[in-house]
Amino acid sequence: MSIITLTTDYGLKDHFVGALKGKILSEYSEAKIIDISHDIDPFNTVEASYIIGASYASFPKGTVHLIGVDMESNKENQHIVMQWNDHYFIAADNGILSMLSQKIVPQKMVTINIHDRLLSEAVDLDVFVKVACHLAKGGLMNVIGKEINSIKQVTDLQAVLAVDGNSLKGHVIYIDHFGNVVTNISKKYFIEVAKGRPYEIVLKTKNIKTILPNYSAIASSDKYPIKSYEGEKLAIFNEAGFLEIAIFRSNPSKVGSANSLLGLNYRDSIIIKFV
Amino acid sequence: MSIITLTTDYGLKDHFVGALKGKILSEYSEAKIIDISHDIDPFNTVEASYIIGASYASFPKGTVHLIGVDMESNKENQHIVMQWNDHYFIAADNGILSMLSQKIVPQKMVTINIHDRLLSEAVDLDVFVKVACHLAKGGLMNVIGKEINSIKQVTDLQAVLAVDGNSLKGHVIYIDHFGNVVTNISKKYFIEVAKGRPYEIVLKTKNIKTILPNYSAIASSDKYPIKSYEGEKLAIFNEAGFLEIAIFRSNPSKVGSANSLLGLNYRDSIIIKFV
Amino acid sequence: MSIITLTTDYGLKDHFVGALKGKILSEYSEAKIIDISHDIDPFNTVEASYIIGASYASFPKGTVHLIGVDMESNKENQHIVMQWNDHYFIAADNGILSMLSQKIVPQKMVTINIHDRLLSEAVDLDVFVKVACHLAKGGLMNVIGKEINSIKQVTDLQAVLAVDGNSLKGHVIYIDHFGNVVTNISKKYFIEVAKGRPYEIVLKTKNIKTILPNYSAIASSDKYPIKSYEGEKLAIFNEAGFLEIAIFRSNPSKVGSANSLLGLNYRDSIIIKFV
Repeated sequence: MSIITLTTDYGLKDHFVGALKGKILSEYSEAKIIDISHDIDPFNTVEASYIIGASYASFPKGTVHLIGVDMESNKENQHIVMQWNDHYFIAADNGILSMLSQKIVPQKMVTINIHDRLLSEAVDLDVFVKVACHLAKGGLMNVIGKEINSIKQVTDLQAVLAVDGNSLKGHVIYIDHFGNVVTNISKKYFIEVAKGRPYEIVLKTKNIKTILPNYSAIASSDKYPIKSYEGEKLAIFNEAGFLEIAIFRSNPSKVGSANSLLGLNYRDSIIIKFV
Repeated sequence: MSIITLTTDYGLKDHFVGALKGKILSEYSEAKIIDISHDIDPFNTVEASYIIGASYASFPKGTVHLIGVDMESNKENQHIVMQWNDHYFIAADNGILSMLSQKIVPQKMVTINIHDRLLSEAVDLDVFVKVACHLAKGGLMNVIGKEINSIKQVTDLQAVLAVDGNSLKGHVIYIDHFGNVVTNISKKYFIEVAKGRPYEIVLKTKNIKTILPNYSAIASSDKYPIKSYEGEKLAIFNEAGFLEIAIFRSNPSKVGSANSLLGLNYRDSIIIKFV
Repeated sequence: MSIITLTTDYGLKDHFVGALKGKILSEYSEAKIIDISHDIDPFNTVEASYIIGASYASFPKGTVHLIGVDMESNKENQHIVMQWNDHYFIAADNGILSMLSQKIVPQKMVTINIHDRLLSEAVDLDVFVKVACHLAKGGLMNVIGKEINSIKQVTDLQAVLAVDGNSLKGHVIYIDHFGNVVTNISKKYFIEVAKGRPYEIVLKTKNIKTILPNYSAIASSDKYPIKSYEGEKLAIFNEAGFLEIAIFRSNPSKVGSANSLLGLNYRDSIIIKFV
């Protein structure tokens, strides 16, 4: 029995998430369902990509990840399942899964073709529920779809090295609950192109010259209490492996956050200069 | 063993929902608890009615629905259980359940009378927990209450046909996470009174002349990509069976929603003219 | 098998809570996980104290409470486990648990020392997960830490009696979902110092002279319907045992709340005069 995770833009006020769980439990009463997020920005496939990429590895192999973002099937978007790194991902073919498939080649991909086996009043979500329960029970992908070799690609999650190799340009792809700003500059790519050179992360205020191993590392001196470092800006590679600009112990509603204090918003560019 | 669902106006910041689950698990360690919503507008029984009516059918028969909205027992509101369409509903008798009982006659209704069997420090919620666990374990309704024949009625959820039969007047009863506007005009009643006549949904901007089968149907032409339809207004009968005015792929915090763009607020009237 | 509860300031938009659950289930597939709150004000240890103190008793004895607020281990804060009143609490030693230990002497306390037994990439949360699963499975505290006799104390949660004994001064420690204002004046301490004397809770508007047994008690007269009492201010000792100033049936986004109407904010003082 596998876990089924849910990542949607449904919000938590409406009944949609509860109803989705009811449908899963109606189909498979033993299902173990875990919420990843239901507050993805509506129809924002980049956010959905980041969240699922940042969290899937915390779950056991074999987990089934249902992604309900921009998932109405239409003339452009088919429903797909991707087996990747021993996890299963169910989504519309709208680019969400390409961040994963660009990193490691998927084990198998299918377009779901069970739509005609459902009741006439079935909606898109019913398809996802049926497929998720089938896979969580250990069912085969062949039974629910036709194998495919490629999916829709998006490139929003890729940082770009300048032609002269002396700077790396990324973008803000996510702003978290603490107002910390996540970029699309991965630790892996940074190390590859930095080649050990010194660097500066260019900001409107003073540049950052060191990427720390964790938040608390900002409080480097034993002379001062931790509290005295509150509000300082810092950079780390976060658990998801991406460069994050943060304010130490930020409380967005009070002292402000990297987002508000440094004026970094969704899709803004971030440049690292090698010096 | 049945599922227990929770629908409350407690919000998710406070400990109330967690404590409620702790009480249920203390009473019945095997309970399977599913959240429907905890963000019902405080004391708003109409919202609670809509949400529970829209979601109950996604759960298996026998599910116990605990509704913690305006549920303090007082001189006006008793605690009741209604068995209806093979589901159980526990609520205060404040009108929440009348939307259901007006559609189909309940199988059984009781006023809960176990209050004197609980510890003196027990609060209203403890009563609901005791009853929910009793029913989820398969217990009988007779044991926990005295049978009644009627409950308090509310009519907020009923649309009204004009005397001449040429127009139908409803109201906005719910605004969802996407800013889409749900009315109290049911598909069933609309079909009954429209008798196949053409119609117009009267809006401040251009009227809508067609109720679509689903959101994506707005993107009717193969000549244009789906994206070009973003922001168009449309009407559908939603999964709950009510007329909904929506903006295609709306993101309330960015481009706006039916709620903001069309100026449709909670309790506003909506008129359908037959022409 | 014990329940594991979660209380964090992670918010629900990000993937952190889902990932935390994934890690717990990876370590202990049978774990039963219940959310208490993930919307603790960032790094606010007073709020975390209040929420955990108000909710732990709703869970069965033996429950493991994981508190992820200000929990990065650093030169000042160690990770600790406290066995208290037959429950287990895992937190950083930042004062959160002192509200409990000031009420009843803990059964046992340890500083966690398993950090060197984890993988090198393990983060603070992995430590908490490991310990929570160990305890939930019935493991001993000795195995995961070194016994200690004292923890960091905070006094924010204590009200103070004036030297002349004629007034009691407390502070607002929490504002709930309904905008009701919770103070640090406990029922126990109030009864102890009031010694049966009449009292007045001093407010900017008319003082309150009676602390009611529950919200509905404000609707004391049979002559008027409950509805006519909406918006009246009142005081009760809430379920957590603290003095709460509330507005009867308040809806913060509509008519206002104790917080907005009475101008009572977080950390403001509240005085009870004995007369």
